[in-house]
Amino acid sequence: MKVKLIRYTPEPDRLCGEAAAICTAADSPIRALRGALASGHESVVEHACFTFRVESVSRVLLAQFTRHRLASFSVESQRYCGIAPEWIIPLSIAAAGLKEQYISKCDEAFEFFCELLVAGVPEEDARYVIPQGVACNLIVTMNARELLHFFELRCCNRAQWEIRDLADAMTLMCKAVAPEIFKRAGCACQQGRPCPEGKRSCGHPREVLET
Amino acid sequence: MKVKLIRYTPEPDRLCGEAAAICTAADSPIRALRGALASGHESVVEHACFTFRVESVSRVLLAQFTRHRLASFSVESQRYCGIAPEWIIPLSIAAAGLKEQYISKCDEAFEFFCELLVAGVPEEDARYVIPQGVACNLIVTMNARELLHFFELRCCNRAQWEIRDLADAMTLMCKAVAPEIFKRAGCACQQGRPCPEGKRSCGHPREVLET
Amino acid sequence: MKVKLIRYTPEPDRLCGEAAAICTAADSPIRALRGALASGHESVVEHACFTFRVESVSRVLLAQFTRHRLASFSVESQRYCGIAPEWIIPLSIAAAGLKEQYISKCDEAFEFFCELLVAGVPEEDARYVIPQGVACNLIVTMNARELLHFFELRCCNRAQWEIRDLADAMTLMCKAVAPEIFKRAGCACQQGRPCPEGKRSCGHPREVLET
Amino acid sequence: MKVKLIRYTPEPDRLCGEAAAICTAADSPIRALRGALASGHESVVEHACFTFRVESVSRVLLAQFTRHRLASFSVESQRYCGIAPEWIIPLSIAAAGLKEQYISKCDEAFEFFCELLVAGVPEEDARYVIPQGVACNLIVTMNARELLHFFELRCCNRAQWEIRDLADAMTLMCKAVAPEIFKRAGCACQQGRPCPEGKRSCGHPREVLET
Repeated sequence: MKVKLIRYTPEPDRLCGEAAAICTAADSPIRALRGALASGHESVVEHACFTFRVESVSRVLLAQFTRHRLASFSVESQRYCGIAPEWIIPLSIAAAGLKEQYISKCDEAFEFFCELLVAGVPEEDARYVIPQGVACNLIVTMNARELLHFFELRCCNRAQWEIRDLADAMTLMCKAVAPEIFKRAGCACQQGRPCPEGKRSCGHPREVLET
Repeated sequence: MKVKLIRYTPEPDRLCGEAAAICTAADSPIRALRGALASGHESVVEHACFTFRVESVSRVLLAQFTRHRLASFSVESQRYCGIAPEWIIPLSIAAAGLKEQYISKCDEAFEFFCELLVAGVPEEDARYVIPQGVACNLIVTMNARELLHFFELRCCNRAQWEIRDLADAMTLMCKAVAPEIFKRAGCACQQGRPCPEGKRSCGHPREVLET
Repeated sequence: MKVKLIRYTPEPDRLCGEAAAICTAADSPIRALRGALASGHESVVEHACFTFRVESVSRVLLAQFTRHRLASFSVESQRYCGIAPEWIIPLSIAAAGLKEQYISKCDEAFEFFCELLVAGVPEEDARYVIPQGVACNLIVTMNARELLHFFELRCCNRAQWEIRDLADAMTLMCKAVAPEIFKRAGCACQQGRPCPEGKRSCGHPREVLET
Repeated sequence: MKVKLIRYTPEPDRLCGEAAAICTAADSPIRALRGALASGHESVVEHACFTFRVESVSRVLLAQFTRHRLASFSVESQRYCGIAPEWIIPLSIAAAGLKEQYISKCDEAFEFFCELLVAGVPEEDARYVIPQGVACNLIVTMNARELLHFFELRCCNRAQWEIRDLADAMTLMCKAVAPEIFKRAGCACQQGRPCPEGKRSCGHPREVLET
């Protein structure tokens, strides 16, 4: 997985502070921002937008990611870009000593995909045989409010490792450029709040991310 | 593929007509609705919502479907529901005489998936080897405005056959219960408008759907 | 203020239960619904939509109401429907003994509005002199997830009385037709959760609404 | 009215070009962007976000503006910021020779508003007597796709002059920093397309804006 923050609204903390200040005629933007976030008035951080380039993630991750509807995705199309035999390898498969077998199973599927193309099957149909672990690239833009929500759900230990790795990486990048907005970014327990997962809770609060 | 319209706002044409009438103080709801739709004021049809149960569609279709963000999806989770070896078979693969091979390739992947489970790999990771043609079930709710937009994009010959079949089936069901709202539902050429696809246009206007 | 629930998705509790059940392959829809709501997985209640006709509310309320973006509004247009001299009267003005004066001030504004029309000023401009307390009518559709969020913000003592009255009335109507979904509807303290308003908290938990 | 573009995603044309290129594996970002826009695939311009500070606009404009739901607004609150006696004056009222009368009617309303405050009526209720022409300030963020849609509706001669002036000013600012994305920004006739307003059409195509 490669993640890069490629664009963002300049001076995000300051801008959202100005937005908070206009609502309540406050003097200090930063204090207004802190007050707004502390009392759950998160709409002011919608003004700051962040664009990431994400490479080499699986279609499994993509399916989870695109369920976040307040986001803009541009995804490499399997219909127009072709498919390369690059596979995301879950650690648990490597740990079970089955990495080589996994890769060869995926490669076999790719060979059959190529046979289908040769037999005249269009790429958009031939891909039905391609494993879900196939890699893809995308560009995504989200505003800070939606990012905070995304981090809350996906930095959690109960999220799948691939999207959690992505969310953790994005969190660090956001904290670096907008430390006020993302000060408490993370899942519920990282924010110091009780876990909402009930019986499904992992029971192990995640340590606060180190910058 | 199985599609069923399982719920919808009662009397959708009448409700949206009332909404159109309130905006302009019109006497006749149906005339107000027709006027609104004719001049592109589509917000009045947002009041009518339609819920479909969709079964046995591929993850390829799901990836395309969930890109429509003004919709509510509840999808069978591969993480919680397990995965069954049911595969969607593109017609083009059958036409190429490769249907049996396709199925056995998919079944082999499923066998390896089971081996991974036995080796202690969690289901959420083992599924990376599962082909994208694996079947899934979902419930989706969209309002009529978003449905009209969905039909415009997905009833088009340039859409992939699987989502086009779904869109066509949903169109017929919508027309049956809300004939005014969906009178001109369909892709651009079905609506009598020029194709927006430019050089990529199929060049073959789709015949108007028969009820 | 007149509020009426004029349409809703039939059997909302059952439908959202089915949606919850499809996600986790649960047997009992109602138990699946309760489990989803208890652990904050609210997306399943998006399938149930509710349409209200709201009459005789002020443009002050309208400005607050339309800030909820996940909702569909059809509002009587001041540009197309004309303006009638009907004024919403805040209780606090009546309590201060200034009701008659308030009405006559509003009526004077309306007289000047009519003078402007006679002088050839278009209605859309003449209305700039109309007080914000002028009455209007609308139809609104929201899904249950957004309604729960709306009630959380607007059933609170810190919300303005007019939109709080509306939210309270809508809450009762929703509870009557979808008791499971709306079992805990209300502001934070009505739900038994701590108030998020911090220093601005009213400090007086609202009693749970009686059905 | 004062409008200022205070922040935007750096290099908007280039970013959206990169997003278009990733979808189709194109070589040239700018050509990919042009191709995407020409065939109506507007999602790629969602990555570019623009934030404006808008001052001295009426509550009439605000009511129209906030109906655009794919936008983030931070508005000066009448409940927390107080109300100043600043009035937006429609040209048509000045042209009818009624400007002074209009202002004095508004000032009278403001005087009564002050009397209400003195009598102990809370500001949030006293404001019901304030004319809709009262001025307010706001910060708004929209992405380029929604801006194109906003300009299509609000640069039209049939839009009210105040929001049309705002849309025209925003169009010029957007064209200056993102000329490719906003090359054809404007209402239907400015884009060279037929007017969708039917019988309500102004019949007078707007001249293309001069940069």
